[in-house]
Amino acid sequence: MPNIQINAARLQSRMREMGEIGALKGGGVCRLALSDEDRKARKLFIKWLEQCSADVMVDRIGNIFGFRKGLGDIPPVMVGSHLDTVTTGGLYDGSLGVLAGLEIMQVLHEQNAETKRPFAVANFTNEEGVRFAPGMTGSKAFAGNATVEELLAVLSVDEKTTIAKELKRIGFDGNMDCGGFNVHRFIELHIEQGPILEKEQKAIGAVASVQGIYWTEYTITGETGHAGTTPMDLRKDAGYVAAQINNYIRELTHEFGGVGTVGFQEITPNATNVIPEKARVRVDFRHPKKNVLKECQQKMDAFVDKACKREETSHKRKALIRATPVQFDETVVEAIEESSRQLGYPVRRMASGAGHDAQMMAEVCPAAMIFIPCRDGISHNVNEYAKEEDIEAGANVMLNGVLKMLQE
Amino acid sequence: MPNIQINAARLQSRMREMGEIGALKGGGVCRLALSDEDRKARKLFIKWLEQCSADVMVDRIGNIFGFRKGLGDIPPVMVGSHLDTVTTGGLYDGSLGVLAGLEIMQVLHEQNAETKRPFAVANFTNEEGVRFAPGMTGSKAFAGNATVEELLAVLSVDEKTTIAKELKRIGFDGNMDCGGFNVHRFIELHIEQGPILEKEQKAIGAVASVQGIYWTEYTITGETGHAGTTPMDLRKDAGYVAAQINNYIRELTHEFGGVGTVGFQEITPNATNVIPEKARVRVDFRHPKKNVLKECQQKMDAFVDKACKREETSHKRKALIRATPVQFDETVVEAIEESSRQLGYPVRRMASGAGHDAQMMAEVCPAAMIFIPCRDGISHNVNEYAKEEDIEAGANVMLNGVLKMLQE
Repeated sequence: MPNIQINAARLQSRMREMGEIGALKGGGVCRLALSDEDRKARKLFIKWLEQCSADVMVDRIGNIFGFRKGLGDIPPVMVGSHLDTVTTGGLYDGSLGVLAGLEIMQVLHEQNAETKRPFAVANFTNEEGVRFAPGMTGSKAFAGNATVEELLAVLSVDEKTTIAKELKRIGFDGNMDCGGFNVHRFIELHIEQGPILEKEQKAIGAVASVQGIYWTEYTITGETGHAGTTPMDLRKDAGYVAAQINNYIRELTHEFGGVGTVGFQEITPNATNVIPEKARVRVDFRHPKKNVLKECQQKMDAFVDKACKREETSHKRKALIRATPVQFDETVVEAIEESSRQLGYPVRRMASGAGHDAQMMAEVCPAAMIFIPCRDGISHNVNEYAKEEDIEAGANVMLNGVLKMLQE
Repeated sequence: MPNIQINAARLQSRMREMGEIGALKGGGVCRLALSDEDRKARKLFIKWLEQCSADVMVDRIGNIFGFRKGLGDIPPVMVGSHLDTVTTGGLYDGSLGVLAGLEIMQVLHEQNAETKRPFAVANFTNEEGVRFAPGMTGSKAFAGNATVEELLAVLSVDEKTTIAKELKRIGFDGNMDCGGFNVHRFIELHIEQGPILEKEQKAIGAVASVQGIYWTEYTITGETGHAGTTPMDLRKDAGYVAAQINNYIRELTHEFGGVGTVGFQEITPNATNVIPEKARVRVDFRHPKKNVLKECQQKMDAFVDKACKREETSHKRKALIRATPVQFDETVVEAIEESSRQLGYPVRRMASGAGHDAQMMAEVCPAAMIFIPCRDGISHNVNEYAKEEDIEAGANVMLNGVLKMLQE
């Protein structure tokens, strides 16, 4: 099957049609996991799968798989992502990976392709984790990262229902065991959700890892005082320690790479002429390497200890998130790079800053991701946008990679 | 009159009695300017003045003066402060200066002292500025720093009444013109409202100046972004610029002296994994020298310009306060130092971090202040406290200085 390509116009048209389910006035989409909108989206996906004669199966956590047989009864090559969105999401996050997978299914069907391996496309349940926290429920269940029972019991954020109840309500409480089959290779196509590819004018990102994420909250306790009458050397200024933390995270990223942010900060009493007696600061630090993450965390802790000692303040430390980085499979990453080069697309190896279903799949099979640029790096936002040509490029790179893997 | 001293027990007893007017449950005082409590305090002050045969006069802004004749019909030596408090104030801020002045009046009376100059003690209207903003209304009117008419027209903070109406209501709309007499020297005894004297174990502060105060608000506008996916060199992090401002104010005070504080800070949207797109920061900078204040302000402005350029953020600057420093009169400051030494009290020359009536008086006559320590530097707080021995020391130093000035 040399030179077969996806049908870009059809993929665009399906992206738009899917985007109408849960469409928000003025643009964007709200299609929360296991909502009525999610049901509609799932049904549309299944309708399209059936149009290309795929076998549709639903597992106990509501993951939907479309299967196409291969010559051998061996593990399939699988692609996929999720159809659920955040409350004010865009048309691309998740849907792109599912519908580009569907498009590959359809191309294989139209070409009557004889492949050694089966092909599968997946829609994973509740990736976003907005209605039921945390997310990646479906891929987590598939990977056996959590038991189906505990995931089914997860309460909705409004505490009115559970995943089990909502799966039943929308008719997607399937019979298939979660993770009931082996997968040869897994690829997820996704928008970057960051500005790197756009900035560097690269069409394709070959995602080799998902950064680890550490969130740490420091609560500094100093002493209030009159801003006019308290000499500098007698101050116990919690806000000043907080500012030093913000500066130090920059220093750490300059030295060690990764990204670091103080996005949340609160000072008390927060009055112009009163020395802050309390500061609550959250540090978000991400890095593709676990040992670097750990080292930077130790350095930050030591820095805060020292800064607090100097300012005669005390502090409490709370680890909010400690998520280990995920390394994708080198052969799959190289296959993506090779496919990009073959098709003439500038490619760059990169790490994902955000979490994705592919990182769960990486626990049970060789997996990697393909990123395409999105405008201004904006995502989880009604203004999220990816160019038609970039979508076409990403889907064709995935197709090219899948075709080779199907013959392995 | 060698070795005459104030009656420390009587002064203590009067401090306590005055503190009962507007007393708060559990300690502290609420005696807002021109309230019913202020009226009671004023009447008690006048009763005590009359008990030592002082002539009492009230001017158009409600300032109360107790006079004691001298041998010559020449400008009096005056001392004083204010009887109003903040909403949750202590027993010492203001009252100490008025009641120690009254005590001097009484001692002179009991000694039948013949002095060359008259002696006067003043209670100035609305120093705190809580109910009617800004404060120092009475001393401002006396100094001619504002017209009586504009001050009388000042609305209460709840906009329900004016100074004129409230003066009339409580019966303190006097006839005397504001600033209707010249003053030879003015001294105000006050608690330090800061920790320096206590820390250095000095009984007396000879206050040579009141710091100038600059308040500046910087509003930084950057760009929001995902904390995980936005590379460090593409960030426009308004919160990071804010942190740099907080650090730079420390550097400035190390280099130029004075005190600098970021007491107020607000970042938007203030979410752990979102790069702050907006930060509002208020810088409170104080210094005894006007040229240093101006230079530091220029340096801070230049720093913010540069930091914003580096981070590709923009900013707006708003000057909230630009109060010039006040230099007290050298002869009066030296007289306070000399009196302290004569009485054996450790004395230190210092600047006042907060504003006081004496700085208004300094515009019309040689003036200075005496500070005494207060516990932990705490003031404008129900826990405000000054030791009896320190109060006695401060009042005796004032008496000693006044006695000399009365013969000049």
